[in-house]
Amino acid sequence: MASEHTAKAFDSDLQELTRLVSEMGGLTERMIVDSVDALIRRDVALGKRVVAADAEIDQLQHVIEERAVLTIARRQPMAVDLREIVGAMRVAIDLERIGDLAKNIGKRVSALESDFQPLKLIRGLEHMTDLVQGQVKSVLDAYAAHDLPAAMSVWKGDEEVDAICTSLFRELLTYMMEDPRNISFCIHLMFCAKNIERIGDHATNIAETVFYMIEGQQMVDKRPKGDMTTFAATVPD
Amino acid sequence: MASEHTAKAFDSDLQELTRLVSEMGGLTERMIVDSVDALIRRDVALGKRVVAADAEIDQLQHVIEERAVLTIARRQPMAVDLREIVGAMRVAIDLERIGDLAKNIGKRVSALESDFQPLKLIRGLEHMTDLVQGQVKSVLDAYAAHDLPAAMSVWKGDEEVDAICTSLFRELLTYMMEDPRNISFCIHLMFCAKNIERIGDHATNIAETVFYMIEGQQMVDKRPKGDMTTFAATVPD
Repeated sequence: MASEHTAKAFDSDLQELTRLVSEMGGLTERMIVDSVDALIRRDVALGKRVVAADAEIDQLQHVIEERAVLTIARRQPMAVDLREIVGAMRVAIDLERIGDLAKNIGKRVSALESDFQPLKLIRGLEHMTDLVQGQVKSVLDAYAAHDLPAAMSVWKGDEEVDAICTSLFRELLTYMMEDPRNISFCIHLMFCAKNIERIGDHATNIAETVFYMIEGQQMVDKRPKGDMTTFAATVPD
Repeated sequence: MASEHTAKAFDSDLQELTRLVSEMGGLTERMIVDSVDALIRRDVALGKRVVAADAEIDQLQHVIEERAVLTIARRQPMAVDLREIVGAMRVAIDLERIGDLAKNIGKRVSALESDFQPLKLIRGLEHMTDLVQGQVKSVLDAYAAHDLPAAMSVWKGDEEVDAICTSLFRELLTYMMEDPRNISFCIHLMFCAKNIERIGDHATNIAETVFYMIEGQQMVDKRPKGDMTTFAATVPD
């Protein structure tokens, strides 16, 4: 830092960036919950609100990128401070992707036509969404608090989400085999479940960003993968 | 630019960034082609090579981000030059996502067990892949040449890709309804087709980045959406 003035200006820029990321995180968490709520309750209006909300998320991501870049150009921060700025940009990119995935679930609400809705499936989807939304919340808290152990706990927890997704896929496949009239509904649910699982992946990306900000290097450890959905479609029993 | 020296150093940094993006683009195009080749020819070894290649793409994205950020911090570029750097970062992020999607197709190769492989489906998938790979190539050329009309032509062309994807979905749905033994195979193909369609979306993102670099503002125009796959699963005829 060149001077005390620059240091203060940098701190203020950084605070504003962190605030924007937190605002974006709150909106994104809301989109996750609302999209699955809309899906389960067949609430087409809520689904449309989720789709509309995505524009705000995209806009925030651009604002964060722009401010981050201007802060780097103006304040010329050194290594550790630079990582804070890059971290904010990276988290915003993951949140933007999460928004896209929730939007895609929201879009599907109006396409669901069947009344077929086995309780076990719905419970599985709800459970998975609760877990993933919890992961997103925890990792955003870990980001804000620079809490590496909390971030690593999210990183490891993704395995459970993947396992539930795989079991949901198997169940959906069984329903499709049983009765062709279930097929189109089950395909929608598969894409939705896959989207939620991918939201979980973005939570682990954010955990890796927290690692990078604190440790000053990229994580090289491989993430434990419980996701077998690529294979689940071939295991109908 | 503070001095001629800084200007030269900046130009050299920027050239290196552009070279890295171009290298990453070449690898990514290759991954797209290989992943679908592997899928169609049931070439498990090639599928695994695509999965392995993704690590290199991820690595390149990190290198580009790091160099971009250091260039901004060191050279303090003004608006138009700053957009060049941000553009390189954005394109690298889209290429990284494309790599992920191709990797996911590569993963599915070893999960395909059925011999069911209707020629019409394969032709549709190949046609869609050719189009999308052409879009990725054209938009990367447009990025390198700062050719806005070429970028906008990619942006508009995505509609055709979406339309093919929707028609593939309908066809796959018909096969699933006809015979439950086709279901698991068709689900894999649906996810693959959706991945290719999403690769096309990333090509349009890159076109938007070219617009931003040249025009100095975000595109606000809505993209023509021919993608009805969200709805296709409900139109089995």
